Amino acid sequence: MSIQGFNPRTGAAVGEPIPKTTAAEVAALCTRAQAAFAVWSVTSREARALALDKVAAALDAATGELAAIADSETALGLPRLNGEIKRTSNQLRLFAGVLREGSYVEATLDSADASIVPPRPELRRMLQPLGPVAVFAASNFPFAFSVAGGDTASALAAGCSVVVKAHQAHPQTSLATARVVAQALADAGAPDGIFALVFGTDAGVQLIQNPAIKAGGFTGSTHGGRALFDLASARPEPIPFYGELGSINPTVILPGAAAERGAEIAQGYAQSLTLGVGQFCTNPGLTFAPAPLVAALAAAVDQSTGGAMLTARMRDAYVAGTSTLAASAERVAEGAAAADTAFGATPQLFRVDFAKFAADVEKYTEECFGPAGLVVAYDDVERVLDLLPRLPGSLTASVQAAASDAPIAARAADALRRIAGRVVYNAWPTGVAVAWGMQHGGPWPSTTNPLHTSVGATSIRRWLAPIAFQSWPDSLLPSELQDANPSRIPRRRDGVLGQH
Amino acid sequence: MSIQGFNPRTGAAVGEPIPKTTAAEVAALCTRAQAAFAVWSVTSREARALALDKVAAALDAATGELAAIADSETALGLPRLNGEIKRTSNQLRLFAGVLREGSYVEATLDSADASIVPPRPELRRMLQPLGPVAVFAASNFPFAFSVAGGDTASALAAGCSVVVKAHQAHPQTSLATARVVAQALADAGAPDGIFALVFGTDAGVQLIQNPAIKAGGFTGSTHGGRALFDLASARPEPIPFYGELGSINPTVILPGAAAERGAEIAQGYAQSLTLGVGQFCTNPGLTFAPAPLVAALAAAVDQSTGGAMLTARMRDAYVAGTSTLAASAERVAEGAAAADTAFGATPQLFRVDFAKFAADVEKYTEECFGPAGLVVAYDDVERVLDLLPRLPGSLTASVQAAASDAPIAARAADALRRIAGRVVYNAWPTGVAVAWGMQHGGPWPSTTNPLHTSVGATSIRRWLAPIAFQSWPDSLLPSELQDANPSRIPRRRDGVLGQH
Repeated sequence: MSIQGFNPRTGAAVGEPIPKTTAAEVAALCTRAQAAFAVWSVTSREARALALDKVAAALDAATGELAAIADSETALGLPRLNGEIKRTSNQLRLFAGVLREGSYVEATLDSADASIVPPRPELRRMLQPLGPVAVFAASNFPFAFSVAGGDTASALAAGCSVVVKAHQAHPQTSLATARVVAQALADAGAPDGIFALVFGTDAGVQLIQNPAIKAGGFTGSTHGGRALFDLASARPEPIPFYGELGSINPTVILPGAAAERGAEIAQGYAQSLTLGVGQFCTNPGLTFAPAPLVAALAAAVDQSTGGAMLTARMRDAYVAGTSTLAASAERVAEGAAAADTAFGATPQLFRVDFAKFAADVEKYTEECFGPAGLVVAYDDVERVLDLLPRLPGSLTASVQAAASDAPIAARAADALRRIAGRVVYNAWPTGVAVAWGMQHGGPWPSTTNPLHTSVGATSIRRWLAPIAFQSWPDSLLPSELQDANPSRIPRRRDGVLGQH
Repeated sequence: MSIQGFNPRTGAAVGEPIPKTTAAEVAALCTRAQAAFAVWSVTSREARALALDKVAAALDAATGELAAIADSETALGLPRLNGEIKRTSNQLRLFAGVLREGSYVEATLDSADASIVPPRPELRRMLQPLGPVAVFAASNFPFAFSVAGGDTASALAAGCSVVVKAHQAHPQTSLATARVVAQALADAGAPDGIFALVFGTDAGVQLIQNPAIKAGGFTGSTHGGRALFDLASARPEPIPFYGELGSINPTVILPGAAAERGAEIAQGYAQSLTLGVGQFCTNPGLTFAPAPLVAALAAAVDQSTGGAMLTARMRDAYVAGTSTLAASAERVAEGAAAADTAFGATPQLFRVDFAKFAADVEKYTEECFGPAGLVVAYDDVERVLDLLPRLPGSLTASVQAAASDAPIAARAADALRRIAGRVVYNAWPTGVAVAWGMQHGGPWPSTTNPLHTSVGATSIRRWLAPIAFQSWPDSLLPSELQDANPSRIPRRRDGVLGQH
């Protein structure tokens, strides 16, 4: 009845086991989150921004300690982990900026007009926080998609309280991060119960079913995400559940690009495929390449080195996944094994002919999480273009093109924008910027809801619901809707956007 | 195996029975809708706006014919039906305006910045249409929430194709409206398959389960909406399903208002309660009133007159619902019966003491569709304020207040904005304007998804998903994301909103 982390390099236990959260504890934390929501949801945007700034500063200050714990539980290495903590604190700062800018509330003011059909009363509309949010942390980003990650940051920014279900792959990291976050929020005057952490699969199930919880966010496997989505949808009061699940992230290497810079493409591909031992949701799992380029791709993967995967279970799943691939495709490359890796995995490249792939798309597009790639060798790019709409939904889709490929690249983009949330040109999909314009989402099975993103400024929209005030006296309205626009936020007034 | 409409005044059949759509026909229509989507989704915003304008003009031109058919199937009367058609065409025009203004695509341009953590590539993000949409028409608005209603208008505007499941209460109206819509769309050059109509419950089930359909919109009962939501969520590829379901629309009459203008409030209440034989989703079903005001409310309802409900089944449900109310509350008023109403119903007012209500909120907050109201007689307004958070989610919540009530009104608003999508001050909830600032939605059970609205400009957001283009050449981008901003739409550039 406890959660134990392990060192992926040695297989040894890390720290003391952490007791699973009991059903009674989960229920009590949800009740506290509900009480905190009543306060936090009406706290000013500026006060919430200051609190996010404080959490960001606290994470920065604790970087050395947090990265060391995380390295012992994940083997991701200090350079990556230091960078990920910085990414996580910058993400909190982005949302502080979103709050101060204020347009995310979509303030809309319509004056009355009795002459139209139907007559229009005075209407003032904005977005407001939805309620307490359950966040299910991911394994592969122990900071950026975990306890203090994007779901938590955007939900706190929105004005929601948060209960996080820790990922069992890094329990000590989760606990240490939660202490930093909770202390910084308390220092900022946020209400008691605004943020809590639970451990254990059962606790996660109880969390998503608790009536106080009004939405869920998740990053992880298709299987786990679908199970939680089903629970959220089947509640007496169904709630939105935003799961970011599996993704094969197709890349199409066009003929001109392959001819012009095949070697560079092969290098970039192998780097992207093997980065972080391939443990990215944006890992380029499926690649369409002109048949002559496959040898260069294989050579680049042959020269790569593996590493330790996050958990023994993930390594076992990778071994099983690559065995399945080997049964229906040709293994054309394998990287070297790394030393000192109890949960070690090697990069592998598989090849299949286009015709064989096209005959059984479903079989060849199962995600194999880790540094394994499938390259589909093609002769006729027209047939590739025709096939793209049959691919499953992905977070990203990429095109490698030369200037001479432009007409084909445009047609590829037309197809790929229907099956992926982000379409990449002459770059690799790994690396997800934290920005206003980021989209990290896509059609099923990459997410449970294609309308949203889990990264970037607009991910806050997941935790907000509209409210309209009809004919209320100005003094009784939220400040964002008052006539004078006291905080000077962008608003729509009688249909026109402006700072009025 | 056919659908037959009836005249609610006489009970006689209207027109010929219409065959139910077969499973094979539904499948074929969905395939055609998918093919149409490929074309319509990349049709320019201006071309789509022109098509909506054409549909609006065609509905206006057909008003006489359509209203006559609808009156025979619904008994709603020509003045109301003429107005509803105008409302429906104006709704289409609103969306034409939304398309031309262009900010709904949320165009966002971020320039590259290699100096930040993580580094940011050039990103350009916008919203794009989701796919073919299934629309389930309502019974109570044969135009505004039916074949050519808000769901259809917003989905077509978004760039989606639409398959409508007609409501069995007005099949001839549905068929006639669909002919007008389809002809106008064809005249505007919209692709074949852009719009279709199906009949029958089984056809509706097949529709929401068809893999080509990517979202659903529904207005109707909690029971029917929940069943379709469950089907949509349980698909191998779950899809968003926006159901607008039941709503009791609480009104709180504050002591100062009751003292100052009790008679006027009673008149307004009875009018709102009995309008359209109470067949509005925003009907004020539950009212909190100072105990002394109940007599005036009862007197006003006593003077009202009933009418024909839309179907025999709805009338039967109303009779059953008012019997249930009569078993646990006191019937204090009943309006007169109307002449010539085969499916007739009378307005009724029920009274319950606050303490009794508070002891069993769930029992007293079941929606009873039709002109029945429950008034909760209170002595202590503080206890009413404390109780408001326990009410189920509603589309609207209203407050009647005098100037002296301001502090209580503010506290009522704080509570009501958590349980309703639109909060009304010194007005009645019936009447839903078509505007930028309208919110027609709310927490469960008033909808299946509190993030959205089914009326107003932003209802288009339900049918849109984000797409980000990373580092694409300008010439290969959609015009909304090109550097020069050729159609001069509002965009966010490096975080700043403007026309740039």
